[in-house]
Formats: sequence, C-alpha cells, structure tokens
Amino acid sequence: MKKVKVYVTLRESVLDPQGSAIMGALHSMDYNEVTDVRIGKYLELQIEEGTRDVDTVVREMCQKLLTNTVIEDYRYEVEEAVSK
Amino acid sequence: MKKVKVYVTLRESVLDPQGSAIMGALHSMDYNEVTDVRIGKYLELQIEEGTRDVDTVVREMCQKLLTNTVIEDYRYEVEEAVSK
Repeated sequence: MKKVKVYVTLRESVLDPQGSAIMGALHSMDYNEVTDVRIGKYLELQIEEGTRDVDTVVREMCQKLLTNTVIEDYRYEVEEAVSK
Repeated sequence: MKKVKVYVTLRESVLDPQGSAIMGALHSMDYNEVTDVRIGKYLELQIEEGTRDVDTVVREMCQKLLTNTVIEDYRYEVEEAVSK
C-alpha cells in the first residue's frame, strides 16, 4: 500500500482571487507582514499496489481528473503507507 | 523574506464527502487501486521578516483564520524565500 501526496497549485501567471481575499483578511487583522498568499489543493491518496506502476497511475489520474493542467501545476510524493 | 507552506487537512474522524466523490470518479475511470482519498488545502504565504517571530505569527494566523481547528489539523514549513 502506498500513500501518495498530491499538491496542486495555480500557475504563477494565473490570478488567485481566493488567495487575495485571504491576504486582505490577514491585513485587516494586522498581519501586514504577509505580502502574498496563494491557495492550492492537497490530496492524500491510498493506493493498493497492483500490476500497474504507481507513478504512471498517479500521473494519469492527475492529468485526467485531479488537476486542470491549463491553469494548474501539480507535484506529488509517494510514500510507503503505514498500517494502523 | 520567508516562504511558508501551510497544509490543512481534515481530522481523521471527520467525514470527507469531497474526497469520497473524487474516489468514486476515479473508480468509474477504472482506477480501482485507489482505496482512499482525503482532500485538504495548501497555502503558500510570503512573509516579510519584521519585529514579530515568523513561527508565532503563522501559528496565530492558522488558528484565527486559516483553519477551523474543530475539524481540521494543520502543519507548516518555513523556508527562506528565493528572490526572482
């Protein structure tokens, strides 16, 4: 069993209104040292090891469903899942 | 200037309907090896170093605005920002 952590972020060139809203809120709370906020998604997947290569499967899933590659970038980490 | 990466995840005990929906979609696309999906948020903050300690400021911001500590956990990493 593998644990895969996927980080999805907006590309540099894409405006992030949600991030700007959070920055505005932080400034109104007197956290003026914050100069930029960007928001992304974080996904944790548990993947059973089978016949298919985990890296290939994760890359396919990211490109087909999890991210919009026109405006988003993604990176991922594969870890051995610790059973509980 | 510091770059702070904040990861916000739902607590273990809290249901994640958005994650379940994504898992359903992945299964319908024949990625049946995926056994669990949890969704979280990922934030990147740029923080100007001032009189206040960055760790303290980040912890305060997380507890007051960025996370709902009743249902969410957070962790963060502080890095030296690379100027472009």
